[in-house]
Amino acid sequence: MSDVYASVDLGGTKTACALITSAGDLLAEKTIATDSHDGPEAVLGRIAHTLDELCAAAHARPEALGMGVPGLADIAGGVTRFLPNLATGWRGVPVRAILESAAGCPVYLLNDVRTATLGEMTFGRGRGVRTMAFFALGTGVGGGLVIDGRLRLGPSGMAGELGHQTIIPDGDRCGCGNRGCLETVASGPAIAAQGIWLMQCGRAPKLFELTEGDPRRVTPREMARAADCGDEAVADVIRSAAGYIGIGVANIIGAIYPELVVLGGGVAEIGERLFDVVRETVRWRIAIFPVDEIRIEPSMLGERAGLWGGAALAMKRGMRER
Amino acid sequence: MSDVYASVDLGGTKTACALITSAGDLLAEKTIATDSHDGPEAVLGRIAHTLDELCAAAHARPEALGMGVPGLADIAGGVTRFLPNLATGWRGVPVRAILESAAGCPVYLLNDVRTATLGEMTFGRGRGVRTMAFFALGTGVGGGLVIDGRLRLGPSGMAGELGHQTIIPDGDRCGCGNRGCLETVASGPAIAAQGIWLMQCGRAPKLFELTEGDPRRVTPREMARAADCGDEAVADVIRSAAGYIGIGVANIIGAIYPELVVLGGGVAEIGERLFDVVRETVRWRIAIFPVDEIRIEPSMLGERAGLWGGAALAMKRGMRER
Repeated sequence: MSDVYASVDLGGTKTACALITSAGDLLAEKTIATDSHDGPEAVLGRIAHTLDELCAAAHARPEALGMGVPGLADIAGGVTRFLPNLATGWRGVPVRAILESAAGCPVYLLNDVRTATLGEMTFGRGRGVRTMAFFALGTGVGGGLVIDGRLRLGPSGMAGELGHQTIIPDGDRCGCGNRGCLETVASGPAIAAQGIWLMQCGRAPKLFELTEGDPRRVTPREMARAADCGDEAVADVIRSAAGYIGIGVANIIGAIYPELVVLGGGVAEIGERLFDVVRETVRWRIAIFPVDEIRIEPSMLGERAGLWGGAALAMKRGMRER
Repeated sequence: MSDVYASVDLGGTKTACALITSAGDLLAEKTIATDSHDGPEAVLGRIAHTLDELCAAAHARPEALGMGVPGLADIAGGVTRFLPNLATGWRGVPVRAILESAAGCPVYLLNDVRTATLGEMTFGRGRGVRTMAFFALGTGVGGGLVIDGRLRLGPSGMAGELGHQTIIPDGDRCGCGNRGCLETVASGPAIAAQGIWLMQCGRAPKLFELTEGDPRRVTPREMARAADCGDEAVADVIRSAAGYIGIGVANIIGAIYPELVVLGGGVAEIGERLFDVVRETVRWRIAIFPVDEIRIEPSMLGERAGLWGGAALAMKRGMRER
């Protein structure tokens, strides 16, 4: 039997825990509410308890635990630096020290999107690939780079911020302080906001039908369905966002020339309508390169890239900052 | 005495040849006209002859020869693929085979800007640095990336095209086919064109004085002098270009988090007036990073980075494509 590894994908709202083998097989999995309002100790206690449950159910003990965290971490020390979406911000929480005694195995931390990149590389679309760029197009837009088989980290795992490249120099203000980041034009909420606007103007009748006019139900995926049903204005919004994503992808291709670019997150669920425009945009924007050799593909692991990435992180016994 | 290496920096107009020691000392140097109209064999013959002269003058024999070429090359085979600025385009010229028999030592080819990056890393500003981005802001805008101590290549050494990232999505058409590349707003000719325009409108009296109104004498460096003398409109043009360069630099910092960004080429000769705005732009555009830790500095080798890079390429016995 393969070795077993524990994985934790800590999120602002929910936290997924799993036991995964070195072959990538899922032995047990449970998602719990993060409930960060009662403090890091309580959250980590619930995670340890959940892992105990999974171990008991699977009759397995993990060799090591890998954990993706939504923000910055001191990778060498296993201490969080700043997790903006958790109550109190988790500044200086010694996660490794706390979880190691509870879990009885070594614990390794990494930024969550970099963890997802590692997952996609080890168990997903990037298997066997040496150089890859990963775009996580979700509520925010994150990313990760694998260069010559190694995840590019930089201090606190900060390298790979592909979502905060400037696409429109005088564009909208981003949460990061910059203007016109890829995130301002290609995140799920940025695209959905345009769908909601069209719906409320009466220019997206199919989207209105599909969501019963409820703005909370407008997602990139529903917008793709509406476009398929004939909402031309919605199709335009998708084309425009995909063009911006194509610019971001083209920029990173020009810089590092990866073999593979993976698009994940809810926005990638738009599917071929999005990928066609991204590929077409990349083709003319980097005409100097034979870019047809570079694959641009959807994530294979989807939402669970982070969970598989935690297992990969544990298997690698953590990452060394460079 | 240190080992001696030969270096050739092949350009569209002129070609520099040198003998350089492994310690970085220049033993002998000569620049000749490229005169590509009479074909690759003749050009390579003149280069071999010039190297012979240098060897005779320096009483030295090179261990190996490194050559930067302005375009694409098959690095493994030592054959040029396409050099757009040389007559006939040099498609499939077996440079290694021709020069090795003439020079009597191994010959290695690489794209010229990647060669300059290698020079700056080995003998210039990047000594001791593990991860560095190099922007060559000249007639065109090229670049190169060193990641974890290794020059990033990709097929034909194409990775590192930092000048063809899109800065303005619907901007001017670039020579590469894209619109709004960094090259369209930050190359020497792009900046000079704006200086010429201001001069011809009577809005740049100091620039007119300095260049005697001759558009051919308008360079980024002269524009910096005019701005220092009080040409406010010229200062604005420089600020604007520097802001665009700052976007390009910020984008690459977000992606790879280098320790050092080096700006070279004639545009970098504008000096602190340019660097101040680049650094300030980077600071607010990547506010999520502690970017003050990342140095943004002028090239130490300037125009000669390529020549020193050729020596570094020879010392490394060429690069392996990845």
